[in-house]
Parts: sequence; structure tokens; C-alpha cells
Amino acid sequence: MINIGIIGGTGYTGLELLRLLAGHQQAAVRVITSRGEAGTAVSDLFPSLRGVCDLRYVDPADVDYSDCDVVFLAAPTGVAMNHVPALLESGIKVIDLSADFRLNNVDQWNEWYGQIHKCPELLVEAVYGLPERHRDAIRGARLVANPGCYPTAVQLGFIPLLEAGVVDHKTLIADAKSGVSGAGRTAAVPTLLTEAADSLKAYAVPGHRHLPEIRQELETVADEGLGLTFVPHLTPMIRGMHATLYARLKEPTGDLTTLFSTRYAGEPFVDVMPAGSHPDTRSVRGSNTVRIACHRPQDSDVAVILVVVDNLVKGAAGQAIQNMNLMCSLDEKAGLAAPGLVP
Amino acid sequence: MINIGIIGGTGYTGLELLRLLAGHQQAAVRVITSRGEAGTAVSDLFPSLRGVCDLRYVDPADVDYSDCDVVFLAAPTGVAMNHVPALLESGIKVIDLSADFRLNNVDQWNEWYGQIHKCPELLVEAVYGLPERHRDAIRGARLVANPGCYPTAVQLGFIPLLEAGVVDHKTLIADAKSGVSGAGRTAAVPTLLTEAADSLKAYAVPGHRHLPEIRQELETVADEGLGLTFVPHLTPMIRGMHATLYARLKEPTGDLTTLFSTRYAGEPFVDVMPAGSHPDTRSVRGSNTVRIACHRPQDSDVAVILVVVDNLVKGAAGQAIQNMNLMCSLDEKAGLAAPGLVP
Amino acid sequence: MINIGIIGGTGYTGLELLRLLAGHQQAAVRVITSRGEAGTAVSDLFPSLRGVCDLRYVDPADVDYSDCDVVFLAAPTGVAMNHVPALLESGIKVIDLSADFRLNNVDQWNEWYGQIHKCPELLVEAVYGLPERHRDAIRGARLVANPGCYPTAVQLGFIPLLEAGVVDHKTLIADAKSGVSGAGRTAAVPTLLTEAADSLKAYAVPGHRHLPEIRQELETVADEGLGLTFVPHLTPMIRGMHATLYARLKEPTGDLTTLFSTRYAGEPFVDVMPAGSHPDTRSVRGSNTVRIACHRPQDSDVAVILVVVDNLVKGAAGQAIQNMNLMCSLDEKAGLAAPGLVP
Amino acid sequence: MINIGIIGGTGYTGLELLRLLAGHQQAAVRVITSRGEAGTAVSDLFPSLRGVCDLRYVDPADVDYSDCDVVFLAAPTGVAMNHVPALLESGIKVIDLSADFRLNNVDQWNEWYGQIHKCPELLVEAVYGLPERHRDAIRGARLVANPGCYPTAVQLGFIPLLEAGVVDHKTLIADAKSGVSGAGRTAAVPTLLTEAADSLKAYAVPGHRHLPEIRQELETVADEGLGLTFVPHLTPMIRGMHATLYARLKEPTGDLTTLFSTRYAGEPFVDVMPAGSHPDTRSVRGSNTVRIACHRPQDSDVAVILVVVDNLVKGAAGQAIQNMNLMCSLDEKAGLAAPGLVP
Repeated sequence: MINIGIIGGTGYTGLELLRLLAGHQQAAVRVITSRGEAGTAVSDLFPSLRGVCDLRYVDPADVDYSDCDVVFLAAPTGVAMNHVPALLESGIKVIDLSADFRLNNVDQWNEWYGQIHKCPELLVEAVYGLPERHRDAIRGARLVANPGCYPTAVQLGFIPLLEAGVVDHKTLIADAKSGVSGAGRTAAVPTLLTEAADSLKAYAVPGHRHLPEIRQELETVADEGLGLTFVPHLTPMIRGMHATLYARLKEPTGDLTTLFSTRYAGEPFVDVMPAGSHPDTRSVRGSNTVRIACHRPQDSDVAVILVVVDNLVKGAAGQAIQNMNLMCSLDEKAGLAAPGLVP
Repeated sequence: MINIGIIGGTGYTGLELLRLLAGHQQAAVRVITSRGEAGTAVSDLFPSLRGVCDLRYVDPADVDYSDCDVVFLAAPTGVAMNHVPALLESGIKVIDLSADFRLNNVDQWNEWYGQIHKCPELLVEAVYGLPERHRDAIRGARLVANPGCYPTAVQLGFIPLLEAGVVDHKTLIADAKSGVSGAGRTAAVPTLLTEAADSLKAYAVPGHRHLPEIRQELETVADEGLGLTFVPHLTPMIRGMHATLYARLKEPTGDLTTLFSTRYAGEPFVDVMPAGSHPDTRSVRGSNTVRIACHRPQDSDVAVILVVVDNLVKGAAGQAIQNMNLMCSLDEKAGLAAPGLVP
Repeated sequence: MINIGIIGGTGYTGLELLRLLAGHQQAAVRVITSRGEAGTAVSDLFPSLRGVCDLRYVDPADVDYSDCDVVFLAAPTGVAMNHVPALLESGIKVIDLSADFRLNNVDQWNEWYGQIHKCPELLVEAVYGLPERHRDAIRGARLVANPGCYPTAVQLGFIPLLEAGVVDHKTLIADAKSGVSGAGRTAAVPTLLTEAADSLKAYAVPGHRHLPEIRQELETVADEGLGLTFVPHLTPMIRGMHATLYARLKEPTGDLTTLFSTRYAGEPFVDVMPAGSHPDTRSVRGSNTVRIACHRPQDSDVAVILVVVDNLVKGAAGQAIQNMNLMCSLDEKAGLAAPGLVP
Repeated sequence: MINIGIIGGTGYTGLELLRLLAGHQQAAVRVITSRGEAGTAVSDLFPSLRGVCDLRYVDPADVDYSDCDVVFLAAPTGVAMNHVPALLESGIKVIDLSADFRLNNVDQWNEWYGQIHKCPELLVEAVYGLPERHRDAIRGARLVANPGCYPTAVQLGFIPLLEAGVVDHKTLIADAKSGVSGAGRTAAVPTLLTEAADSLKAYAVPGHRHLPEIRQELETVADEGLGLTFVPHLTPMIRGMHATLYARLKEPTGDLTTLFSTRYAGEPFVDVMPAGSHPDTRSVRGSNTVRIACHRPQDSDVAVILVVVDNLVKGAAGQAIQNMNLMCSLDEKAGLAAPGLVP
């Protein structure tokens, strides 16, 4: 049995870890922290967990992680880097769901996140937790930087094209649509139901924090600089993410669907749909599956790749558990088998 | 391993049976029928089941149920009664999720459903599948009539009050709010997103088909005629049902929450919340739990009982599986342990 | 031309006043205040008003209201009572959309709102701004206390029954469902889209602040103490309110629809629908109309009255403009003629 | 006073015409047809129009249009071409909101719509009703083909770039997101609330019927063949459309916002927002305004243009009324002044 600690468990990522781990047969959450809710029963904050989780939040200052095999960090940017060095020193495996360890370059990190990174040496050690690209490295890692939701969807859609070298790497466009839970469980006017429901808008077009992470990873795939435009949109869904990806094909290419199916053969959580399909985000609601469909409209030279994930599962907590399974030599699918909740 | 057949598997009830049974370790769906979709892969109709269900729909005329231990009927009103006699004769246990066997009185059935019942003798045999009242009878039943969603929520909220005799049985009011999936997966203008979203209305106030079923059952609890007003509302949710129940207390009573907690002690799927709670429907989204909170506002003589269920789970497919577990001597919770999907 | 000032114009009530007054031919907003947004262009905060409103927010401390004929107060509870005495002294007509002047009894006000009222003498002078009951008094008033959204819907549904004396006044139940905008434009976790969408719950069952206001007014109608249970619900709509009202009829009564049609004959904003109707909230979206339908299900002795209003229009800003029209001897419908936005 | 007829008035376009024309001082609907609802009061079908519209639907076979100055056709594809020749012969001005007269090339029309066009000579005469490009021609037209919703949003975003010749016309990508009302008021499973809410998907990626119309018009702007990829998405909104447009700039260009502001100076319904803005669809809910914001992320060579319209107003009925105003020498803004309904 894997014993788990969760640091920062009052947000949606923490809640989703608890929900998914409740169904995991070989792992159990032993401790969960919160500064603001210390002493509160988890199920008082989240009544959906009544009868499922009987933990109380503990103040981070009071926690002893010595019984933990794995610690998930589900805190805001800048918190994880305060905890990780000591955890690693104690021999605990760490999976950080925040952005603290996703970039290799410390200067870039400092610039995008407006802080000074406290353990830049670990930026280099941390393994980027996208199993479809780094499975072996994840298996051996002490510290995994769990990818963001946009990066997961965008990378999984572009990787086969870039690896195969079939697209002009200067022409990548990622038009991504996210449910509101991507903004977290923080009181804010723009994400009130009254502001975000029955409406849709782009945001952060000048530069979203997930952009450097996407660029860093895809450039190691393409082995050259990318021309990448990334436009995120806020859409009136609770969960769900749809990335619509565009790239110019170098030549009238063969079958994109076959290219993707071959690349992802054997991947337990990547479902390449038949040519001509249009995945909807709800088909992966609550599930760790990513669904992909490939198009070349009107036989033009533009590849259109449709990718859907649940931003809280494959885009956060589910992928983190998938990484834990790999790091702990468990079945990669353990705890992650449930299909999407439809309708 | 219990072998299952599903008759009428293209609606939401059928889909929900498939979703839930995918996680059931001791039961497996072997055959699923549809007249209109015969030959279609289930996962083509419901892509959320890709990789989870590899069945194809079979025409009802071509089906051999001889390998089935249990058959679920998830067809519109009036279909089940054509199938049930033969199934029972073959020794198969039957759980009907439609209204065909919910009323004991054939005249009442004929009147409310506008058809002539074809096997009225089975109306008497059928056990009403509300485990919290009829668990023992369900265990021994060949034919279970699975309750409707409104009746489940309304009965579970009124039963403790009526059994204890603390309310005037002439003053019952059930104001119930349902998500749109209660109307099924049938193309219709009133349930289009454009018609039902961001709006709310009462419907069927003169008399909803679930009314006689509620009345029949609660009258056997109260052992006398009821004064019951039932007003259903269509609300802009996919799933979820909230029943707000009112009844006049005979005298300034003790603690209603204690009354309910005692009545439902040991019930695996009934969660009586602390006094003063306000359950939300999402806390049971996708889960078989019913949450109940008891109020007596302003210390008045009116009991206000709040009940939430997922209309497709405890209000349909989940309760049907709970009944199957009882009929087949399995753990009553098998396949039904997942907590609600929040957010 | 009526010159208008708005105090507290950054919330939904203020925004709705601006939207509706943009179409009013005989009135114009001249000044609008906000402490937090002083200096900001109104249309920067609310881009829907770009090209429609060219005002900037002014700090309340810097405002001179001497050019105003009417001032609307759209501030949180406890603010209006600081401004009203001086405004009245300057000869300005005042319409307060907050709760500051809705209760006659100062002790009750202090208790429910947890503050000490600063000008209790005005509690007596203030006219309760429900035109369907107090039209003449409103015409002559200096200070109008604009009703809350729940009280508007609940009173308009009960008034004909109580005035006619056909119901037992001890048996009133108001089960009301509100869109989320009723909670205002304030950052808060429970009204995030991720928390409130696709879900439904009752709240404040022990006692909502609108209860004493409803009770006070209806008791003057009934001329005796009421037995009134009021249960509000938060529903996943932006706007809209549906009150489902229950009362026991003293005797098998005549036609409720006729009773209501007669009572509201000539009312410009009350639409009594044909017997058997089920109004939906969207039919009044953005409109000042209240729609009402009367039922007596199963010929029982329970009257069921369905009432829909837009909580921000007839439940707030629209009714305030209706009151202004009356106080300023304008056409009562001026600026309020637009039908509901459907779909 | 302009007398209006509406053919096909039971869909959302017809309803929206009625809603908007209710506020038009110089025009009135005199007759409205429906085959299926002949005899029904309009306000029985659409209760939001109770007290606003007292017309009944008339069977198209029984209608005499001789009193009409203008007829709007709001029928499905293939209906208008049966009516238009006779209407024009009677001297009536015609505005067709369907696709029957949007393409100039009859072969292309026949291919995309799978029918044989019945009056191809009128395809040439019909003026494409985008006032921002064809205002003068519309003023003198007998027959206006009102643009589709996607074409309106996409063209208004690309026109300034193509007219100025600043983008590579082979690199146009239009990623468009539509509310569900774009699919009309027709009973269909995919647009049920239960199917379309809380989800998002692309559709018709291989080729949407609005593509040739966009291509035809933009090619006359660019005066050469385009490389245009158009991907529509179904999003969980009732109304609203967001087009995110991408094009490669030929050279590091000057200020895109200035380019757009200059092009649309004086346009009554085009609002070019300040650089860096992110318009949301709700800001134009119910309004005829189109809002546009221009970006060049990361100072790259990719222009990103954000465009929002209400698909039922500027994308259909509002634009049709704008065209009527032009054709009838009325104030272009008559009946179209209301700001967006927010929240």
C-alpha cells in the first residue's frame, strides 16, 4: 500500500486527487494539509466526500511526512519549492502539480512567474510528467513536474506531427478552450457563474503562463525553434478542455489518423478516434483519457487536430496519479479506469 | 460472475447502467438490445465508452437471453410488459426501470399510462425496488419494479416522518426540481439547450405520472389516505434532483435529524447530514448516495426536508444495480462506491 | 428630462439601472458613484455599455447631487441610510434598492441586519415600492423602499389569495428558486460557476433576510399573523426567479385564474396566464413583467401559484424605474417596454 | 410606417425578428406564416411575446402580401426561392435570412445545398447583406441575402486585413465558437441540454455550409484565391459567437487596432476595442453590435483577431433589420439601439 500526503488540499486539484484516490486499491491518503482549513474535516469542506474520506486538514507546520511514500503538491505557484528539497531528502517521491518545476531554465521561470526560484538545481533534475513522452524517466524519478492542462492537450496533439517531421514547425497554432475549473477554487469576479456562464472569451492572448512550458517541450521534440501561437479561451463549462491545433503540412501527406494511431499504440490513456471524428469534452468528463481526432479539411495542406481532456484529470490529478503509478511500479491504470460521466 | 442483458440500451438509463457496470467486479453485460441501432457498436453511439464496452446493439427479435442471469429493462413505458413473462419463465431475474410494474392497481395503471396492461397478475408479484423499505422482499424477488427518480427522492424524505407518525398526513407537499436528463434522450423542443438552459419552470402541475406511485407507497407507510401535493420543476442541470418536502408537525417535535439518522442507520446509500445542512445536488453527481437534511424553520410546526439524488443513479440505474446486488446476494455496494463528481 | 444619480453603481443592480435607463426617453443618468472604481469609465468596467454610457465613476465624497431629480441607491445594506436624510433635505426623490428602508419596525430591522439603523424615523415614512399594492402612496412619496426580488415574486402571488380571504393564512409555503445574480457581483466561492453550475440547493432555510419583509407586507394584507414558510433555492441560472406558492383553500373555491385576472386587471406588468399554464423564467428575461399561473392540482384544496420574475428587473432595477416613473408622473411603462430575451 | 411580412416565423430567427421589431417605431409586422402552426397565436408559441404581439400564424397558402412593403424570409434552406420571384414581382422588398441567395455561383449552390436552385438569375441580382461592405448596394436592392452568423463574424474580422493587404492570404484560419441557437429550434438529440451543456466540440471540420459563402466574399476582397481553414465549434451557450482569427502578417506591421478603427470609423454597429482587449460574447447578448479586438502575441508575425457577435442579432435578425432600415431609407440604427443584456 502506497501512503500518500497531499500538500494544499483545498483546491480543485486536491479535491480531484481525493476523489480519484478513493477508488485506488493500492494507495491511500494519510495526511492532507491546509493553512486556512487546519482542523476542518475534509468532508465538511467537500460534502461529496462524506463517507469516503475521514481525514482532517492539518497545518503544514505540524505535519510529519515520515510515513509517506509519495507527496503530491497541489498548492499555488511558489509554494512547492519551499517543501520539495526536504521531502526529497527524506526519501519521499514528490509529484508537484503546480508550475514550480516545469521549466528547465531558471531565468525563464523567474521571468514568467515573477519570483526568484529557490531551488534551481532541482529544475534540472525534475522530470516533466508527460508519460506519453517521458515514461521511462518518470519511472526512475524522485521529482516529477506534473504538466499543466493546456500543455497536456496541446503537446499530445502536436507530438506525432513534430516527431514525424510532417509539418512546418513555424506554423503551429493552438486554439484552446478551457472549462472554468482551470481557474481554480478561488473567489474572483470573472469566474462567477453570473460572469462566465452563457458567454465565451479569449484571455491572456499576449502570453499565457503555460506557453513557455509548451514551447520548451515541443522544441525538444522538433529539435528547433517553433513558431507557436497559443490562444486560450474561457468557456462556460465546469470541466473540460478542447484544443484545436493547426499546422501546415510540408507535403500532401498520408493518413494522419494512422500516424497518430501508430504513435500512441499501447498508450493506456490516449484514444485516437477514426478519421472524421469530432470528440466532445464530456466524453472524458471525470476520466483520464485523452481523445484525439485528425482532419485535413478540403484536402488542404493544413492539419487540424482535435484534442479533448478533462483539465482536472488528465490535465492535473489523473495524470499525477498515472505518474505515481509509474514511479511506484504499480499498474499504470490503477485507480484511473472509470469512463467519462455522460450525460 | 453475473451475466446481464439490457433491453433498450440507447437511452440515458441504459448508458448509465453500462457506465456503472463497467466498474462492477462481479457482473458483466453480455447483451444489449436496440431496435433502431441494431448492429451499431455501443461505443459509436456513446464514445465515452470507447475502450470500455465492446458490445454491439442487437435487434430484440434476435436475442437469446438464455445465458443471462439478470435482465434490466430500460425501455419506454409499455415495452417491458411484453418481455417480462417470458423472461421470468426462463428463470431470469428481471429489473424493470420503466413504470410498467410500479403500480399494484391495474385500473390505476391503465388510467395513468393510457394503455391496457398486458400482465396485470405480475403487477401484484412485482416488488417495488426501494431497498430502504423493501430490502428483504427484493432479496427474494424474481421481478423488481425500479422506482422513478421523483418517487425515490420524495419517499426517502417522507418515510421517517410518516413511519414515526409525527406529521399530519393531510399536509404533505413535495416541491421537486429535476435536471433535464429526467426527460430522457429523446429529441424534443422543450429540452433543447436553447429552451431549457438558463431558465426554470414547473410542469405537469395538474398531475405527473410519478404521483400515483408516490401516493401508493406512502399510503402503505402511513396506513391511511394522504393529502399530497406534488409539483415537479424542470431546472437547467444535466443531472440531479432536489426534493424540498413540507409537512405540518403534529406537535413541537424532538430532533428531526435524530429521527432520520436512526431510521437510516446502516443504510449504505443514505447520508443524513447534520442539522442545518443544505445538500447540493452535485454532491451526489454520478453517485448512488441520497443526502438528506432536516429543518424546522423559525421553530415553526413545519418540517422542511431537503433531499438530493442523482436522478440517473439512485433515481434509476444505480438503484437498479443496488437491487441486482440484493437479488443476487452480492455486496449491496458492489459497483456503486464512487463518490460524487465535484466540481 | 429627469436627471438621475446612482449611488453604488458597480453591482448588478447598478448595471441593470444603466442598461434599462439607456432606453428611457425622459430620464438620463448624470452621475454615478463608486468608492473603489472612482475615475474608471463605466464602459471599461461593463463593456456592454460601450457606446451607450460615457460616464465615469465618481467618489461618493466628491459628488454634488444638486442637479439630480432622483437618486437611486444601489449599495449594500447599511449604506443608504447614511445618504438618504441629506438627499431628502435637498428635495431629491430617493429610491433605495437595498434593504435599508423596507421594514417599518426598527427593532426588527436591527435584529435581522445586525446593525443599528441610523434614521429610524424614515423607516416609517418610506413607502414600500410595490406598485401593485401601493401605487398611490408611491406617486406621492419622497422615499421609496424598493422591494427585494423574493418579496416581489412571493407577494404578487399571495396578495390576491389573502385579499380575497380564500386561503387559510396559517398554511402559506413559498418555495422560491433564484438565479445566481441574486447574490450580487461579489467574489465568493459558492457563486463561482464551478460551484453553482449544474447543481441546485436550498439555502438559508432557518431564516432568509427577505422573510421579515414578506411577512410584514402580507400581514397587512391578511390583517392577521401568518403561518409562512419560506425556502429559497440557488439555481444554475444567471437571472430569473420562480416562486412556487402553496396555500390551503378554505373551501372548494371558484376559479383562481379569474380571481387573479380581476385583481391585476389593468396592471401594466402583471400577466396572469390562462389556467393550466406553466410560465418559465426566461419568458421574462430582461423584462419587467411578472407572469403568474394558478393551479389547484387534482381538484384538491391546495392552491398552487406559479410566479416568475427577472430578479434584476421586476425584482430590482426595473421595479425601481417603475417607481421613478410613478413618483415623477411619467408613463409607468416608460423605458420598460422590451419583451423578454428568448431564447 | 413600414409594413412587414415574415415567412417562416416559428424558429429562432423569426422570434428574434418579432422581439426586435416590437421596439421599432417605424415598422410593424402585419403578417407571419407557418405551415405547422397556422391558427396558433404567436404568443401561445412564444409566451415572452404575450402583450407584445397579437398576431396569429397564417398558412402560407392563404397569405396576401399586398399590404407589405418588406418581407423577411426566415425559413429553412430551399423555401425562400419558391417565394421570392412572386414577391419581387409585386414590388415588395425581400430580405432572405436563409442561405438561398448567398452564393453567386449556381453550381456551387447546388453542390453545397444538395438541391437544384429554382431562380438562379436572382442569385446574381441578390445583394449580399453585409452593410459594412455593401451598404450602397443594399440601399438600392430589391433582394438582400442576409449573411449567416459565422460569415458575419469571420468576414468582419478579416476584411480590414485583406483590404490593407497586410496578411498572407494563403494562411487564414478561422476558429469559430457558436452558441447552440445557431442550430435552430428543431428537435434533435445533439442539441438537447443533456448533450450539449457542459461540453464543447468541433463539428463539420471537413466542410461547413458557411465556408463557400465566406470564401466567395473574402476572395472578392482579396482579389485572389484564399487559403482559408474554417473550424466551427458547438459551445454550451444559448446565444453568442466568438471567432478567433489567425493570419500571417507579411511584415512587422504597424498598429492593427488603428487599422481596424480606421476601417470601421463611423460604422454604427462595429466596436473596435482598445489594443489588448478580450471581448466576451455576453457583451453583445441581444444586441446588434460586433466587438473586435486585435492582437499580435509576443510580437510575432501572426495577427490574432477576436470577434464577438450575437448569432441571432448581428448574425441574423438584427442584421436583417439593419438591412431593412437601409433599403427603406430609415435610420440604420432604428430598433437596434439596445445594449447587451449583462449579466
